[in-house]
Amino acid sequence: MKEPGCPLCDGPGGVAVFEGPKFRVVRASEAGFPAFYRLVWQDHVSEFSDLAPAERRLCMEAVVQVEEALRDHLRPFKVNLAAFGNVVPHLHWHIVARFEWDSHFPAPVWAKAQREAPPDRVAAIERLLPALERDLANKFADLPGNCTGV
Amino acid sequence: MKEPGCPLCDGPGGVAVFEGPKFRVVRASEAGFPAFYRLVWQDHVSEFSDLAPAERRLCMEAVVQVEEALRDHLRPFKVNLAAFGNVVPHLHWHIVARFEWDSHFPAPVWAKAQREAPPDRVAAIERLLPALERDLANKFADLPGNCTGV
Repeated sequence: MKEPGCPLCDGPGGVAVFEGPKFRVVRASEAGFPAFYRLVWQDHVSEFSDLAPAERRLCMEAVVQVEEALRDHLRPFKVNLAAFGNVVPHLHWHIVARFEWDSHFPAPVWAKAQREAPPDRVAAIERLLPALERDLANKFADLPGNCTGV
Repeated sequence: MKEPGCPLCDGPGGVAVFEGPKFRVVRASEAGFPAFYRLVWQDHVSEFSDLAPAERRLCMEAVVQVEEALRDHLRPFKVNLAAFGNVVPHLHWHIVARFEWDSHFPAPVWAKAQREAPPDRVAAIERLLPALERDLANKFADLPGNCTGV
């Protein structure tokens, strides 16, 4: 179920980390936020409550896997989760590792910047991402329901 | 499990809509956003992934009940879901009905305001909230797991 003209139907929406039949995970390119991921539901649905109960469970278990990978690999101060879709009404979850040094902390990523993120801190996080993403792709391959359908 | 000094352990965090053993739902008082609810986990946990799997399922089914009540009663353009906790690291989900006329649309509620919300539109939504909240409290009373423990 694709929607013509939807950017998340027409394109990946970021750098591919994992691609499955039900959802994909991409790394967003948001300046100053090196560990900003999106879980994109493959079908074009608008609201989280448009998913069937089993799909919702799969979706959130996948979000939790991303959150846990961020926590295990990066030790962030906090993980932020959000599903908006006001501009692109195709279900996608933002999963963002937040640090006390980041440009917007403690405000949400979508608020006004409060400072510039120190480039050395950003670079230190970026060096940890390849291992994080390998780990995540391996975990998703084992997630019940993703490869066999819900 | 309460944390001394935590505002969501010490107080309700909004106007009570539903109070259960595992979570509560409150209406936030955010100017220009009449249908801004929060689902607050009763125990002081920081991250969504700190919950046990059955608790996560209960939590998100409850979030979905709020989302569906907003959709059924208010017909919003979009529902926004978010769990941040950068300032108050006690798990709580923001569940917000968004309208094309609201002060921040299509940006997230936490971004810069783009206009003033028309007071008559806000008032029209406010008139629908008592029925919405009664409906929600009834639905939660029936939600498996909430009253009997997970």
